[in-house]
Amino acid sequence: MVKGEIIIVGDEILSGEVQDTNSFELAKQLSSAGFFIERITVVGDEQKEIVDVLLTAIKKADFIILTGGLGPTWDDKTVKAVAQALNRPLEINKEAYQHLKACLAKHGKPFLPSHEKMVLLPAGSKPLGLAFHACGFKLIFDEKPLYFLPGVPKQMNQILKAQVLPDLNIIFPNISILYKKTLRIFGISETEVSNKISSLLASFPEIKVSSLPCFPEVHLFLRANKKEDLDKLVKEIKTILGNDIFGEDTETMPEVVGKLLLKKGYHLSVAESLTGGLIGHLITSVSGSSNYFDRGVVTYSNQAKIELLGVPKEIVNKYGPVSEKTARYMAEGVKKLAKSDIGIAVTGYAGPTAGPEAEVGTVFIGLATPTKIEVTEWHFNGDRSEIKMLAAMTALDKLRRYLIL
Amino acid sequence: MVKGEIIIVGDEILSGEVQDTNSFELAKQLSSAGFFIERITVVGDEQKEIVDVLLTAIKKADFIILTGGLGPTWDDKTVKAVAQALNRPLEINKEAYQHLKACLAKHGKPFLPSHEKMVLLPAGSKPLGLAFHACGFKLIFDEKPLYFLPGVPKQMNQILKAQVLPDLNIIFPNISILYKKTLRIFGISETEVSNKISSLLASFPEIKVSSLPCFPEVHLFLRANKKEDLDKLVKEIKTILGNDIFGEDTETMPEVVGKLLLKKGYHLSVAESLTGGLIGHLITSVSGSSNYFDRGVVTYSNQAKIELLGVPKEIVNKYGPVSEKTARYMAEGVKKLAKSDIGIAVTGYAGPTAGPEAEVGTVFIGLATPTKIEVTEWHFNGDRSEIKMLAAMTALDKLRRYLIL
Repeated sequence: MVKGEIIIVGDEILSGEVQDTNSFELAKQLSSAGFFIERITVVGDEQKEIVDVLLTAIKKADFIILTGGLGPTWDDKTVKAVAQALNRPLEINKEAYQHLKACLAKHGKPFLPSHEKMVLLPAGSKPLGLAFHACGFKLIFDEKPLYFLPGVPKQMNQILKAQVLPDLNIIFPNISILYKKTLRIFGISETEVSNKISSLLASFPEIKVSSLPCFPEVHLFLRANKKEDLDKLVKEIKTILGNDIFGEDTETMPEVVGKLLLKKGYHLSVAESLTGGLIGHLITSVSGSSNYFDRGVVTYSNQAKIELLGVPKEIVNKYGPVSEKTARYMAEGVKKLAKSDIGIAVTGYAGPTAGPEAEVGTVFIGLATPTKIEVTEWHFNGDRSEIKMLAAMTALDKLRRYLIL
Repeated sequence: MVKGEIIIVGDEILSGEVQDTNSFELAKQLSSAGFFIERITVVGDEQKEIVDVLLTAIKKADFIILTGGLGPTWDDKTVKAVAQALNRPLEINKEAYQHLKACLAKHGKPFLPSHEKMVLLPAGSKPLGLAFHACGFKLIFDEKPLYFLPGVPKQMNQILKAQVLPDLNIIFPNISILYKKTLRIFGISETEVSNKISSLLASFPEIKVSSLPCFPEVHLFLRANKKEDLDKLVKEIKTILGNDIFGEDTETMPEVVGKLLLKKGYHLSVAESLTGGLIGHLITSVSGSSNYFDRGVVTYSNQAKIELLGVPKEIVNKYGPVSEKTARYMAEGVKKLAKSDIGIAVTGYAGPTAGPEAEVGTVFIGLATPTKIEVTEWHFNGDRSEIKMLAAMTALDKLRRYLIL
């Protein structure tokens, strides 16, 4: 078993100002790759503390990944601490220097003394992440690989995937690869998922299964040593959960909906009230969405619903903006306005206040298809942002379930 | 300064199956109460590891809070580890025993041998959380208070608030409350912020300042023992960074923009192309946004820009959808359509593909005010979701800078 340790550096984490997400991401990806994480330590931007925890970790771990404290500002102490702990003098790293100089030159800027700190690394370091304009570095000490990555989650993640994991796989070639599958579920709770599949899981004791609510979805993680076992269990879970599973592994709801729209050759338009543009944002998060989405309207006020979507004034006045009737006219109106095949409309109260006709959390979702208009009523729990997200995702899920029929 | 350490026990965290939220909650609440967290360590359900980290922490910390591994199942090792580390034999705790027996009796159940483990605590323990049916415990060792809490976040949080924090306040009555301030910055990079204020910070050595890029913003965290010092530094940083600071503490950009719109009595409308609804979503994330926002349009296609916003066909054809001219007509068009005081328009290429007239990352932001129309051209770097977010936030920031003049 190859044991690794994770060290996170950052005052802002110890003071509770920022939640550390890097250790979770690292633990998840390293475990998936077959490595065992023995300890995670968070320390502040204090040279003495970083030295102390680094020296303790080196004694026990086969490899170490440290993130944070690498930036160009005064509060970043990691590089100095590493130099001190490992007794490696700081020197200008040639590879990092050439790269930074070339980058600056491309933008017509000179290499200034203030840039020097950015390429000053402990002797023997191999820079990491140059391709992403983020400088981490790797060192071998006591025959153990030590990786120092920037604390910015996105940069950390890119370097982890592109350089650290491949490097670890070369250094430790014989770890047992696990076969994995993530099933993404929407529309039923984690408890319902558990109730439906727990007896099935009992007959696959050798497969590790865990479920996690990833708001507003539920994810099932499956890990097996044998691919055949995994495939068999996945097939049986799919039989039980059916269309409540919307995607696998990294597939998102907007991607799944987009693929289905493309397949059917349908164009979509959306009329959003309480979601305020969130559905349009989710749909256009997918590259190529212009092939099936050309417009949407955010009709936050009654007047906007009447003017832009042609919802009759008397309907809004009689039934209120949050009503089955209004949702129906909105869906029909946006479909007509956009000359699209499908129109989605969402109206509701996200809170904290509501109107006389409905409570906070009440949402009507209208779906106008080439042949009919359907409206469903929902009652969501949560704060403003949760209700918006639940409404947007439920609208997309409703469309997905219509498209797969 | 009273220093605490946090220890989190749980295999599921090291394997990346569950994200630890307890350490964040603990750090936040303890820091707010004036305590300083020096280290957070996550270890697995291994007796040896728990003993090791506990003994290391006791040497340095004034108090320790450990969560997890307290349940009645086979994988819970904390109680045994504590007994071993502190050399305190396990014995049936009378208070916990009486409580559990009474609870069971209330439900007509007998006290079984299997219940014994639940009330077996290291000698000298004081049970915690009995009121919440969750058994944690407190021990004094080496004159230091050590708190052992259940890992279930809700139980942990209840015991922390009801028992641990009040107890710490009695034991350490004279802790200096830290005065804190977060300054939220948009429009300049972390390096630029650092260059501008680093010499100022040098003259406030007693104030702890850290900066963090919170995409797409930069946050400055300031912590001081004296309120006067903090106020003085904040004032001086504000003089230097000026309007690049958009908010303080938990204020978000949409909140700040919303307050300014309300103050001026202006109504806003938005025409979104590449942002796809994100600006509307951000604006309507603020409760009460219906007071200044009544509609938006997502005009993803050329046809939508022409039909909904009245952008002349010849303009789109001649200059392309991603152009200064098109942005200008979009901003003017949405302002007219909504009869609003202000219209914002955003058009650009989020990638990975672009049109012939502009590259990926090129964005035009139009701002139509009661007196004029201004368009600015931007070139953003990043992936699709980053470019969308940068465009949306830059549009809101442009509006903010206009409104504060």
